[in-house]
Amino acid sequence: MIEQLTILAPGLLGGSVAKAAYSTHAAKRIVIWARRPETRKALAKQNFVSSVADTPEAAVQGASLVVIAAPVTQIAPIATQIAAYLPKGCVVTDVGSVKKALVKTCTQALLPHAHFVGSHPMAGSEKTGWENSSADLFQKRTCFITPVSKTNKAAVKTVSQFWRKLGAKVVSLSPEKHDKTVAHISHLPQVIASNLCSYLLSTDKNALRYAGNGLKDTTRIAGSDSHLWREILELNQSEVLKAIQQFQKELCQFELALKKKNYSQVTRHLAKGKTCRERFILS
Amino acid sequence: MIEQLTILAPGLLGGSVAKAAYSTHAAKRIVIWARRPETRKALAKQNFVSSVADTPEAAVQGASLVVIAAPVTQIAPIATQIAAYLPKGCVVTDVGSVKKALVKTCTQALLPHAHFVGSHPMAGSEKTGWENSSADLFQKRTCFITPVSKTNKAAVKTVSQFWRKLGAKVVSLSPEKHDKTVAHISHLPQVIASNLCSYLLSTDKNALRYAGNGLKDTTRIAGSDSHLWREILELNQSEVLKAIQQFQKELCQFELALKKKNYSQVTRHLAKGKTCRERFILS
Repeated sequence: MIEQLTILAPGLLGGSVAKAAYSTHAAKRIVIWARRPETRKALAKQNFVSSVADTPEAAVQGASLVVIAAPVTQIAPIATQIAAYLPKGCVVTDVGSVKKALVKTCTQALLPHAHFVGSHPMAGSEKTGWENSSADLFQKRTCFITPVSKTNKAAVKTVSQFWRKLGAKVVSLSPEKHDKTVAHISHLPQVIASNLCSYLLSTDKNALRYAGNGLKDTTRIAGSDSHLWREILELNQSEVLKAIQQFQKELCQFELALKKKNYSQVTRHLAKGKTCRERFILS
Repeated sequence: MIEQLTILAPGLLGGSVAKAAYSTHAAKRIVIWARRPETRKALAKQNFVSSVADTPEAAVQGASLVVIAAPVTQIAPIATQIAAYLPKGCVVTDVGSVKKALVKTCTQALLPHAHFVGSHPMAGSEKTGWENSSADLFQKRTCFITPVSKTNKAAVKTVSQFWRKLGAKVVSLSPEKHDKTVAHISHLPQVIASNLCSYLLSTDKNALRYAGNGLKDTTRIAGSDSHLWREILELNQSEVLKAIQQFQKELCQFELALKKKNYSQVTRHLAKGKTCRERFILS
């Protein structure tokens, strides 16, 4: 069991980490720091919070494991800010959706005093804020961890065990491989859903009221926070760009087949999509 | 109340029409014909079926309302096949996803003896077959009806009232406007989901196991029947092609903004998508 879990800047994910850690007895104490005073005040009343600190530096005092749950561009600045205040041997992780640059900066900022291990739980919602968090958000979800060659092995074990305790399936990838993978399975679907909605809005918004469940499901994630996603896409710009361009090629081939009334090729695309959906996307 | 409802070639939709009509007491008798003898045998045992006929011609004897629930390319042939056997004044409708060509053929085939009113309930599933049908499939769903200038007004009323009784919200559109509308809100999302899956399968299928709920929802409809969808896309080829091309323009603009690191434009696309999802797609 973790002696003290400190969660910095909890939103939907950080709040869920706190609730899940509380309900699974993953930590003896859960200390939280939030940027906004009103959030700190609200969190101080929650049963899953042991204490609330007024600064990140105060929150990490006595911490065994720190989870930086801030939006992805704020993770490295917070890691740098807390570095000098961490107990010796403290393990620090995060929940950021992009890993390459972040892992490099955070690892360098903390060594040799404390240890950074990147994490990215593939869980979330189009909703934001700790108020929408839940204790079972990580149940059966993939959580990527992204150690590098100089990452402390014991710290990797601590972080892996922590996520498993919270119900996640831990998958270890290099930061580079992680960023390429999520460009495909997370960032590209977001771009597509957002652009489908963006296009539909400019075409015939009255028709949208008639949408069936197909369109509703296909576009659910388009309701996600635009600024959080702008940051994710900015940090993973080159991989996302490649994924978009490759998807465009696929769609162009389909468009050409439909244009030429080559319906056997149209069917091949549809059937390949069905194979993918049924065999590889587990639900 | 309908004296006799006849459902021809029930799959997921036709089975759901039968179950919904039974549970809402929309019809006194429900007579069914299915193409395969084993399906007829299985349906004869169901409580929502009054009797099963061996041919479409026999099934429509004594019918007040006939629902042709066959795949979209088979609707007009069945309408032509039953035309001479329909009681005088019988109302015939369907559940096909594309309307323009079908409404023209069916209307001509039945007049003046019987009346055709095109229907398209925006309900369904990636699953097929009457075994997956349900009595509440149409609850609060849009059902398009597509009368034309020569359509009998009383027949339009019969069909509207029938779908309302089954729980649907009825929306009347011309066949042309219907086909353009569903190209956007139904056929384009299907093309996108299928091609996203088709692309992902060829890229890194191992990564698909790590998918979060975002990708799962975005691609659910890619699991739909390829042959049914090939027929729908074939019948609505020109409208779907236009929708794909316009979506490609939207995605190209986004790609260019990301490539040029114009993140304010990236955010505008994301925010516009969010507006659409939240304000216009009701769930």
